[in-house]
Amino acid sequence: MQETFRAELDSLTGDLARIVRLAGQMMTNASTALYQGDLQLAEMVISGADEMKDLCDETDRRCFNLLVLRATVVTDLRVVVAAMHAGRDLKRMCNLTQHIAMIARLKHPAVPIPAGVRLVSARMGVLAAKLAQDAAAAIESGDPMSGDRLAQADDQVDALRRRIFRILFSEHWPHGVEPAVDTALIGRYYERFADHAVAIARRVSLLVTDLPPEP
Amino acid sequence: MQETFRAELDSLTGDLARIVRLAGQMMTNASTALYQGDLQLAEMVISGADEMKDLCDETDRRCFNLLVLRATVVTDLRVVVAAMHAGRDLKRMCNLTQHIAMIARLKHPAVPIPAGVRLVSARMGVLAAKLAQDAAAAIESGDPMSGDRLAQADDQVDALRRRIFRILFSEHWPHGVEPAVDTALIGRYYERFADHAVAIARRVSLLVTDLPPEP
Repeated sequence: MQETFRAELDSLTGDLARIVRLAGQMMTNASTALYQGDLQLAEMVISGADEMKDLCDETDRRCFNLLVLRATVVTDLRVVVAAMHAGRDLKRMCNLTQHIAMIARLKHPAVPIPAGVRLVSARMGVLAAKLAQDAAAAIESGDPMSGDRLAQADDQVDALRRRIFRILFSEHWPHGVEPAVDTALIGRYYERFADHAVAIARRVSLLVTDLPPEP
Repeated sequence: MQETFRAELDSLTGDLARIVRLAGQMMTNASTALYQGDLQLAEMVISGADEMKDLCDETDRRCFNLLVLRATVVTDLRVVVAAMHAGRDLKRMCNLTQHIAMIARLKHPAVPIPAGVRLVSARMGVLAAKLAQDAAAAIESGDPMSGDRLAQADDQVDALRRRIFRILFSEHWPHGVEPAVDTALIGRYYERFADHAVAIARRVSLLVTDLPPEP
């Protein structure tokens, strides 16, 4: 039973890494759909994210089955629980890519983010997508992202969000209320996506299954 | 061991119900702080939510310990996992009350939500807090909220959010960008708080521990 358990656990963490990577690509696509007003790409993200959410539910069921199989060491239990939480984070990430693609679809053919703030907003999207790639790489290499890099990523996201607010709230913002609200909400979605990716990257040390048994 | 397990599980779900109820009260306080510009109350929510997040982390540890103790029936495992997810939802709910209290603190002595949209926004806050009370009552009575009531709550939250957008994006919105962005973000925080409360209320059937053993 222990061998089945370990094999299933390895396959599960491998799948999680693939879905995190895919979520990063989906976020890139959602951003492209948004900034280039690409309706078809927006639709692809919206339906693709639904499929990915099904995959996340599937990892949740697999985690539960692993709990039923019963880990014999506490470390294995920690891995299953970490995988379970990572699956939930991932599902939220999929939802957030959908939110952004839905704004792109709703506002099409207009691009809801005005030129003056587009670069900062897009940079936030790039950073969010990159954090998902980093999280996937961390799972695959079995090497958690360093605390320094995680703190740096947090700082970057915060700095970009503050910059967006400064632009929106300046006296020179000429675009009115609706684009400002869209920009603020999209910034919030990017921020949350990044938070979830960082949470996964932080937990990677728990997701690595070939740890020495606990003392 | 099974008796210890059951006793600890019952105590855990009891504590979860208490924290959910408290989270609802915190959201009410955050709203009061916001709409009445009460700085002291905002500070209380911000520090109180930190303490509550510690309690959530504690429930997470207790769930893990229960997994280590090992449920002998699959139903018990489901309860532990449901409690673990409820603890995470709760922690996010605490974060969201903090976000709202922080906006109240940041904008004090101004009230960031203008009169024309205050009533709708406040109603969203009342609904979010009520859903937390409902979720707590559902845990305590061991009776999950009916699917109808949950769907109705979802519809109400959605309807209020759409109404807020209609007000913000109308040509007659005279308050400019900053209050509109604050109102939109606060609406988003209420919506997420309500989502988490609904998720807990949905899971209650799994949180009730005196179920018949699985066939």
